[in-house]
Amino acid sequence: MNFPVTVTVTLRAGIADPEGATIERALPALGFDGVTHVRAGKSFHMMIEASDEGAALEKATALAQRLLSNPVIENATARVGDSGWGAP
Amino acid sequence: MNFPVTVTVTLRAGIADPEGATIERALPALGFDGVTHVRAGKSFHMMIEASDEGAALEKATALAQRLLSNPVIENATARVGDSGWGAP
Repeated sequence: MNFPVTVTVTLRAGIADPEGATIERALPALGFDGVTHVRAGKSFHMMIEASDEGAALEKATALAQRLLSNPVIENATARVGDSGWGAP
Repeated sequence: MNFPVTVTVTLRAGIADPEGATIERALPALGFDGVTHVRAGKSFHMMIEASDEGAALEKATALAQRLLSNPVIENATARVGDSGWGAP
């Protein structure tokens, strides 16, 4: 069975995030006030063939740690579900 | 009140995704079989000051469309909630 999996890769706390800081600085000039703590990250969506949801999640977590993130500066979390991607 | 908001920016269906294609091609060599339809995108997390959750979501959606995505080739979806980011 194929499960939709979403992997989110985020910078670890304390790691400088110039992209997020730049967005945060640009927002007031565009009329968006009251937006703080902007952090930028990456998102991946895939279909994973597995016998059940737990196995799909386990595969996705291993893959996220080994291939999609740099564990020195990034955290990777995987979850089963579409959330914002729609059908592939 | 401050609400945690996550914005996900994804390529529209039909737009070529070389990053996703490269990841998909690399996976079998690393021992991950049965992973298909890999798509790469961006993810942003922020705290938004608003009177209620609906207002925060509205602000985030406007901001995602105007600043965080290119609507010609990308979809942006905003949702209130942490999902994988942890405390800012």
